[in-house]
Amino acid sequence: MTLLDPLFGDPEADALLTDARYIASMLEVEVALARAAAKAGMIPARSVSAIEKCADVSGYDLAALAAEAGNAGNIAIPLVRLLTECVARNDAESARYVHWGATSQDVLDTALVLQLRDATGVIVRRLAQASDAADSLAERYAGAVMPGRTWLRHATPISFGLKAAGWMAALDRARERIRESLSRALTLQLGGASGTLASLGERGGNVAAAMAAELGLAVPDLPWHAHRDRLASLACALGIATGTMGKIARDLSLLGQTEIGEAFEAASDGRGGSSTMPHKRNPVGASVVLGAAVRAPALVATMLAALTQEHERGLGGWQAEWETMPELARVTAGAARHTAEMLAGLEVDVERMRENADITGGVSLAESVSMALAKHVGKSEAHRMIEQASRLALSEHRSLSDVLAEMPDVTGHLSATEIARCLDPEHYLGSAARFLSAAREEHARSMKR
Amino acid sequence: MTLLDPLFGDPEADALLTDARYIASMLEVEVALARAAAKAGMIPARSVSAIEKCADVSGYDLAALAAEAGNAGNIAIPLVRLLTECVARNDAESARYVHWGATSQDVLDTALVLQLRDATGVIVRRLAQASDAADSLAERYAGAVMPGRTWLRHATPISFGLKAAGWMAALDRARERIRESLSRALTLQLGGASGTLASLGERGGNVAAAMAAELGLAVPDLPWHAHRDRLASLACALGIATGTMGKIARDLSLLGQTEIGEAFEAASDGRGGSSTMPHKRNPVGASVVLGAAVRAPALVATMLAALTQEHERGLGGWQAEWETMPELARVTAGAARHTAEMLAGLEVDVERMRENADITGGVSLAESVSMALAKHVGKSEAHRMIEQASRLALSEHRSLSDVLAEMPDVTGHLSATEIARCLDPEHYLGSAARFLSAAREEHARSMKR
Amino acid sequence: MTLLDPLFGDPEADALLTDARYIASMLEVEVALARAAAKAGMIPARSVSAIEKCADVSGYDLAALAAEAGNAGNIAIPLVRLLTECVARNDAESARYVHWGATSQDVLDTALVLQLRDATGVIVRRLAQASDAADSLAERYAGAVMPGRTWLRHATPISFGLKAAGWMAALDRARERIRESLSRALTLQLGGASGTLASLGERGGNVAAAMAAELGLAVPDLPWHAHRDRLASLACALGIATGTMGKIARDLSLLGQTEIGEAFEAASDGRGGSSTMPHKRNPVGASVVLGAAVRAPALVATMLAALTQEHERGLGGWQAEWETMPELARVTAGAARHTAEMLAGLEVDVERMRENADITGGVSLAESVSMALAKHVGKSEAHRMIEQASRLALSEHRSLSDVLAEMPDVTGHLSATEIARCLDPEHYLGSAARFLSAAREEHARSMKR
Amino acid sequence: MTLLDPLFGDPEADALLTDARYIASMLEVEVALARAAAKAGMIPARSVSAIEKCADVSGYDLAALAAEAGNAGNIAIPLVRLLTECVARNDAESARYVHWGATSQDVLDTALVLQLRDATGVIVRRLAQASDAADSLAERYAGAVMPGRTWLRHATPISFGLKAAGWMAALDRARERIRESLSRALTLQLGGASGTLASLGERGGNVAAAMAAELGLAVPDLPWHAHRDRLASLACALGIATGTMGKIARDLSLLGQTEIGEAFEAASDGRGGSSTMPHKRNPVGASVVLGAAVRAPALVATMLAALTQEHERGLGGWQAEWETMPELARVTAGAARHTAEMLAGLEVDVERMRENADITGGVSLAESVSMALAKHVGKSEAHRMIEQASRLALSEHRSLSDVLAEMPDVTGHLSATEIARCLDPEHYLGSAARFLSAAREEHARSMKR
Repeated sequence: MTLLDPLFGDPEADALLTDARYIASMLEVEVALARAAAKAGMIPARSVSAIEKCADVSGYDLAALAAEAGNAGNIAIPLVRLLTECVARNDAESARYVHWGATSQDVLDTALVLQLRDATGVIVRRLAQASDAADSLAERYAGAVMPGRTWLRHATPISFGLKAAGWMAALDRARERIRESLSRALTLQLGGASGTLASLGERGGNVAAAMAAELGLAVPDLPWHAHRDRLASLACALGIATGTMGKIARDLSLLGQTEIGEAFEAASDGRGGSSTMPHKRNPVGASVVLGAAVRAPALVATMLAALTQEHERGLGGWQAEWETMPELARVTAGAARHTAEMLAGLEVDVERMRENADITGGVSLAESVSMALAKHVGKSEAHRMIEQASRLALSEHRSLSDVLAEMPDVTGHLSATEIARCLDPEHYLGSAARFLSAAREEHARSMKR
Repeated sequence: MTLLDPLFGDPEADALLTDARYIASMLEVEVALARAAAKAGMIPARSVSAIEKCADVSGYDLAALAAEAGNAGNIAIPLVRLLTECVARNDAESARYVHWGATSQDVLDTALVLQLRDATGVIVRRLAQASDAADSLAERYAGAVMPGRTWLRHATPISFGLKAAGWMAALDRARERIRESLSRALTLQLGGASGTLASLGERGGNVAAAMAAELGLAVPDLPWHAHRDRLASLACALGIATGTMGKIARDLSLLGQTEIGEAFEAASDGRGGSSTMPHKRNPVGASVVLGAAVRAPALVATMLAALTQEHERGLGGWQAEWETMPELARVTAGAARHTAEMLAGLEVDVERMRENADITGGVSLAESVSMALAKHVGKSEAHRMIEQASRLALSEHRSLSDVLAEMPDVTGHLSATEIARCLDPEHYLGSAARFLSAAREEHARSMKR
Repeated sequence: MTLLDPLFGDPEADALLTDARYIASMLEVEVALARAAAKAGMIPARSVSAIEKCADVSGYDLAALAAEAGNAGNIAIPLVRLLTECVARNDAESARYVHWGATSQDVLDTALVLQLRDATGVIVRRLAQASDAADSLAERYAGAVMPGRTWLRHATPISFGLKAAGWMAALDRARERIRESLSRALTLQLGGASGTLASLGERGGNVAAAMAAELGLAVPDLPWHAHRDRLASLACALGIATGTMGKIARDLSLLGQTEIGEAFEAASDGRGGSSTMPHKRNPVGASVVLGAAVRAPALVATMLAALTQEHERGLGGWQAEWETMPELARVTAGAARHTAEMLAGLEVDVERMRENADITGGVSLAESVSMALAKHVGKSEAHRMIEQASRLALSEHRSLSDVLAEMPDVTGHLSATEIARCLDPEHYLGSAARFLSAAREEHARSMKR
Repeated sequence: MTLLDPLFGDPEADALLTDARYIASMLEVEVALARAAAKAGMIPARSVSAIEKCADVSGYDLAALAAEAGNAGNIAIPLVRLLTECVARNDAESARYVHWGATSQDVLDTALVLQLRDATGVIVRRLAQASDAADSLAERYAGAVMPGRTWLRHATPISFGLKAAGWMAALDRARERIRESLSRALTLQLGGASGTLASLGERGGNVAAAMAAELGLAVPDLPWHAHRDRLASLACALGIATGTMGKIARDLSLLGQTEIGEAFEAASDGRGGSSTMPHKRNPVGASVVLGAAVRAPALVATMLAALTQEHERGLGGWQAEWETMPELARVTAGAARHTAEMLAGLEVDVERMRENADITGGVSLAESVSMALAKHVGKSEAHRMIEQASRLALSEHRSLSDVLAEMPDVTGHLSATEIARCLDPEHYLGSAARFLSAAREEHARSMKR
C-alpha cells in the first residue's frame, strides 16, 4: 500500500492490484499450464499436484523475487526458479516439468490478464453504482429547474434531472465499453520463445486450449506477444471512463462553488476539512476524480506509444506497460469509487437552482422570446431585437420583461401574457422530460446487459 | 493542402478533410435540418428549397468565413449569417427559417461526424488492403524460415508467413475496432442552446428523428454536446490502428537494415533517394508510419483530456477537438496508405532469411535441444547444460552441434541424428503453420463482416 | 491559411509559419552554405551569386515540391533538385556547387531553427504584452478586495491586484524560459551524410563557422541530427507558457460566470455571439487559450517521444517533429495573443468582487477569528470552536459575527470590536500588498533583461 | 518497495522517494516553520523544541496517516493532527503553535521540493557517471571505424568514438538542464490559506525568509500554490534526459542485434537470462531505459496538463501531480542508473564494426567518390553516375571499386589509387576527430560547472 491508496484508490481494487496478488496470478498460470500439459500427455499427472503444492504465494519472499528480477530483467525468471526449487524439494522428477514449454512473457501476460479481469470487475461494479445513483437523481430531480450553462455562462434552463441523466447515460456507455474491451482482452498468452510454441511440438494447440479453459480465457488465433492492441483497447476504455467521470466531477465542483451553491458532496466528520480554515468543506471526491482525469490520458498514451513493439517480442514497449496498465486500473477504480459516492450522497439545493435560474432577470430565456417573435419577424430580425433588449436589461440591471414591455416592435407581436410565459423557465424545457425518460429506459436495459 | 500532405497523408482522405469539405458538410446539415423541420410542420416547405439553393459551398468565401470566425468564436456563426443572407436575397420570408432551433454546436458536431464517416471510410479501405496484402505474404511465405527475434536478439526460428499473419490479424482487429467505434459515433447532434431542444417546443424529437434519417445517422437518447465519449472512442480506435501499423513499420525497417537485408520497401525512381548518398534507398513508407505512430498517442490523449467538459457545453475542451480529430484521421489515413503500399510491394529475400537463421551456428535453436534433453534430465538441468554449451559455442565461434558432440552428458541421451534434427530450423517451427492457417481463415471471415 | 487560423492563431506568427516561408528559409540556408563554402575556398565565388539569384521562393511551385516530396521522403530533395536546375539555366558550372557537402537534414533542421526564431519572437512579444497588461491590473486593483478561492470554494480574501501579480510573474517566467531555450536551440545543423562532414574534407569546421555566422546561429560541438534535446527543450518552454496562460484563462472564465460576474473579456460587436441566444457573450479568448492548454501537453509529449532517434539520423522520430513543432508554436502564439488581449481589455467589476467577498457572512474569514482566538486557547481548540460556529452560521444562514457574539468561550477572549475587525476582509490581506510590490519590481527587471 | 523497484529504479533514489521519507520531509518543514516563527517572535522558543521532539517520522503510523488522508483529502491534515497531539502530550501550551499560519499545501509543496532536491541529486550524479563513461568510450574508440547509419541503413562511416561523444554531449546537456531547472524549483512554499499569509499578520515576510534559510530554499516573490511552472520545468528536464537516454539505449540495442554484434551490455551471471532459451543474453539495461523513455513523455504531459489550476489553489491539477512527479523522478533515476552501467561496462567489438563498415562493398562510401568526381563533372552529374554504379554493384553483388574501374566516365577523372583512397573508410571520416575533441573538452568544462 502507498500513502495515497486510501485517497486515490478503491480498497477492493487495490487489494487485487498488489504485488502479492500478481505473483499469485502467475502461480495460478503455472498451475493451469501444468494441468493443460498433463491433459495433453506431455507431463506426468503427478507433477501437476507437485506444482500445485508450491503454488501458494505466501511461500514466496517477494523482496527476494524483486531483487532477483532486478538482474534477470523480469519477475518470471526468479519465480520459475523458486517454483522449480520448491517442487524439487518434494519431487525431483516433477521439477523437470515446471513452466513446461512456456516463455516468461506467457506467464507475465496471462497473469496480467487475470489481474485486469479482477480489477476491472470492481470498476464495472462501481460504474454501475454510479449510474444507478445518477438514475435516482434523474428521477428525483426531473422537475428541478436550473440554469443551463454553456461556455460557463447561463444559457436556457434545464432540469437537474436532465443533467443527471446525461451523466448516467455516459457512465453506462463507459461501463459497456469497458466490458466489451475486457471481453476481448481476456485472451490466453501461450507462444513459447518466439510465438511458435515449438517447445510443445505438435501439441501446442491442445495445451493452449486446455490451459485457456482452465483459466476461463479465450484462445487467440496467434500469440500476441508483440501485438498489444487488446490491452491498449482496454486502456482506452478505462481512459474514456475516467474522462467521463472527470466531466461529472467538473460539473459538481462548479455547482458547489460558493456563489452557486446548487450541489455538494455529502459532508462527514473530517471529510475535506481545511488545516487552516475551520468552516471549509473541500470537495475531496471531485479533487480525486479530476486528478484522475488529468492523469488517465497520459497513461493511455503510454499504452498506445508502447504498441510499436519489435518483431516477435519487443524491447522497451513491453516494459513500459508493466506499471502503467495496473496504475491506470487503480486510478480508474479510485475515480469510479468517488464518483459513485459523490452521486449517491449528493446534497442538492433545489431552491438555489431555481433562484439561480432567475438571476439574469429573464435574459437567459431571451431565446424563448426570440423564437416566439421569430414566427412573426423571422429569426434574424428577432435575434437582433432581443439581443438589443437583453443588452439594455443587463446594462441597466432591469428585468428583460420590463424592457420588452416598452418595445412596441415586440408588444405588437407578443402579448404580456405570452412574454411572461416565454420567460418562465418551467415552460422552456423543451424535450428535457422526454430525453430524460428515454435515457432512463436505456439505463434499465443497459443494467440488464 | 500543406507541403507535407502528399508525404504524410492519403490523397483520398485529404480530399475529404479539407476546409471546403467541412463547410460543405455544415451546409448539408443545415439542409437536413430544414427538411426535417418542414416535415415536422415547423417551417414552410418552400423554405427548404430556398435553403437548398444556397447550400453550395462554392458560393462561400472561405477566407471571409475564417476571418469572421476569428471574432465570433466558431465557424457556424458566420456561415449561418451568410446562409441567411443568401436565402434572403431570393426569399426574404424563408430567411427566417435558416438554422431553425439549432445551436452552432449542433451543426459543427454533426458536420464533424459526417466528415469522419467519409475519412474513416478511406482508412477502413486502406486497412483492408493492407491486411489483404499481409494475407498474401502469409500464404506465400508460409514456409520461409527466418530467425525469430525477441528483445532484438535471435530466438527460435519462425516463418516469415507467421510474422505476416500476425500483422494481418492485428490489422483486421484494428479495422473492425474502427468500424465499431465509428458506428456508434455516427450519431446526430441536435440539442439547441442547452440540450433541451426547447427552441423546437414539443416537436424536437420529431425533427431530430427526421434529420437523422436524412443524414443516415442515429438519434441519441440525449444530446451529447458535453459528453464526447463516442468521438474519443473513435479516436482511440484510430490511435490503436496507427500503433499496430507502427509495429509493422518498425519490423520492416529493422528487417531492411543493411546487415539483415531480409525485406525492403519496393524501390521506384526517386523514392527515398538521398541528397548526398547516391546508392541510398531510404525506407520512406516506414518513416511516415513510424512518425504517425509517434504522433497518434498524443493526439488521442488530447481527445481524452478534452472529455472533461463543463456543464451543458464546455469551454476549451471542445475547441481542443476541432483540429485534433481531423488531424488524427489524416495521420491515420496516411499511415494506412503507406502500410498498404509497403506490404503490397514488399521485396522479400527468402535466402537471406534462411542464412540469417543459421548465423548463430545453431545456438538460437538451443531451446530445441534443451527441450529434447529435458525429457531425460529435467528442464532445469537441461537448461543449464545447454546454456554452458551455447556459451562455449559463442565464445569459440564454433557451431553448437560441434560442441554438443563433445559433451557425453548430452550424447548419452541424444544421438547425433537427433541433435541434427533439433538444430534444423525447419523442424522447430512448432505450431507456426497451424497458427497461420487459423489466422488466415479468420481474416477471410473478417473481410466478409 | 486554414479555416481556424484567425481564431486559434496569431496573424504575425501565422505569416511566419507558412509553407512558403519555410521554403524561403531553406533557400536562405542554401545561400548561407554557398557563401560559407566560397569563403572556405571550396566553391567559386561566382557560384554564390548564381545560387543567390535562384533563392527567391516565389520562383518555386510549392505544390510540385510537395508532390515530389511525397515520393522522395522529404522536401529538401526536390528543392535542391529545382534549385540546381535553376542555377544550371544561368550557369551550368555553378550548378555543381549547389548544396555542397550538406545532407537534406542539414537544410531542413537549420531552416526549422530559423523559422522558430522568428515565430518564437512573436510569442515572446505577446507574452511581454500580456505580462505588462497584468502589471497594469496589479497596480490598478491592488486594493480591490475579492474572495480568495481554493478548491473552488471561498477561502480568505485576497486583492485582485495580487491575483493579477501572480499571473504577471508566471508570464514573465514563461517568457524568460522561452528565451533561454530558444537561445540554445539557435544552433546550426551541418553534418553531412552521417555527421562527420566528410564531404567537406578538412574544411568542414571552417564552412560550419562561416555558415553559422551568416545565419546568426551558434556552432555546435557536434552535429545534432539525432540528438534533439534543444528542440525538445524549446517545446517544453512553449508548453509551460501555454499551461500558464491556460491557468489565467481558467481563472478568467470562472470569474465571468453568471453568478460571479467579477471580470469579463472586453465585448465588441459580433465577438462571442451565440447563434441562438441573443444576450450571450461567450468568452472566446478563454475558449481558445484553454483549448490550447489542452493541446499543448500532447504536442510537447510528441517532441519528447520523438527523442529516441536511431544512430546518426533517425527514422520516424524526426518525421514526427516536422508538423508538431510548428503547430506547437502556432498554438502557443495564438494563446499568447488572446491572453494579451484578454488582460489588456479586461472589464473588472470591483463592487461585485467586494460583494462576493461578503456572501459567506464572514465564514470565509473564520481563519482570521481562529488565529486571533488561537493566541488564547491554542490553534487546535480555536479551530474546533470556530469550525462549530461556522457550521452553525452556514446551516442557520446567519452571519458568523452573530453566532460568535453568542459564544461565551469566544467573547471571553475577543471583544466585539476585535471580532468585527477580524471579519473585515480589508484587514485580513496579510502580505498581499508586499507580495504585489515585490512582484511588480521583479517584472520591471524582467522586462529589461 | 514495489516488485519492480530493483529493476526499474535506482536504489539510492528509491530510498529517497519512499512514503516515510516524504513524511519525514513534511516534519522537517514543520520544524523549520516553527523555528522561523519563533525567530520572528510569533511563537515561544520552547515550542520549537517541543515540536522538534515530535519530528521523528518513526513515531508515526503511516498506514493510519494514509487512512485518515483518504477522508481528509490530503496527508498534511492528519499529520498536523498527530503532530499536535504528540506535542500536547509533552507541552500542552506548545501544541497551540504547531503548523502556525501555514496551510496544508505549504507543507506538502515544500516537502515535495525537498524530496525532489534529494532524488534529483542522485539523477545528476548518475548522469555524470554516464557521461564520464561515454567520454571514456569516446577517447578509447576515437579511431574505431564503423558504419554510420541513417534511416536504419548504412551511410558514410563514422568512428565509434564520435558516436559516444554525441551521447556524452547530450548527457551533459541533460544534466545541466536538470540542475538549472532544479535550482529554480528549490523555492519555499508559504502562503497560508489563499496566498496572502494573512495568518501571519505583518510578519509573513520575516517568517518566510527565515524558514527558507532553514531549509536552504529560495523565497519566491509570491506563493506559487496555483502557479506550478517551476515543477513543470523540472519535469521537462527529467523527461528530456530520459529521452536522451532512450536514444542511447536504442542505439545500443540496435548495435547488439545478432547480425550486427558491435556492442553489448556487460554480461553477468543471471543477467538477462531467458526462461526458455539457454544461450540468450537479453539487453536488460536497454529494456529498462527504453521503457522509461516510452513512459516519461506522458508523465511530463501530465505535469503540463496539471498547470491549468484554478484561482488561489486548484482542484484536480494539483492532485494529479502528487504521484506523477515522484514517479517521473523514479523512472528517470532508474534510466540513469542503467545508462551509466551500460556505458561503463560496454563490450565493444571493434573488428566487427570494421567488418560491417565493409559489407556494402564500398557502396556506403559512394558519396566519397561522388564528391571527388563532382569536382570534375559537377555534383548532380557525379551523383547520377555514382548512383548508377552503386545500383549495379548492389544488384550484381560486386564491389563498387570493380564497377567503377569499368566506367570510363569515372576513370577519365579519377585514378585507381584515387578511387581506392575514396573507398577506404578511414580516409572518409571528415571532421570526426575534431568534433570528438571539441566535445570532450566541453565535457571537461561541463563536469567542473
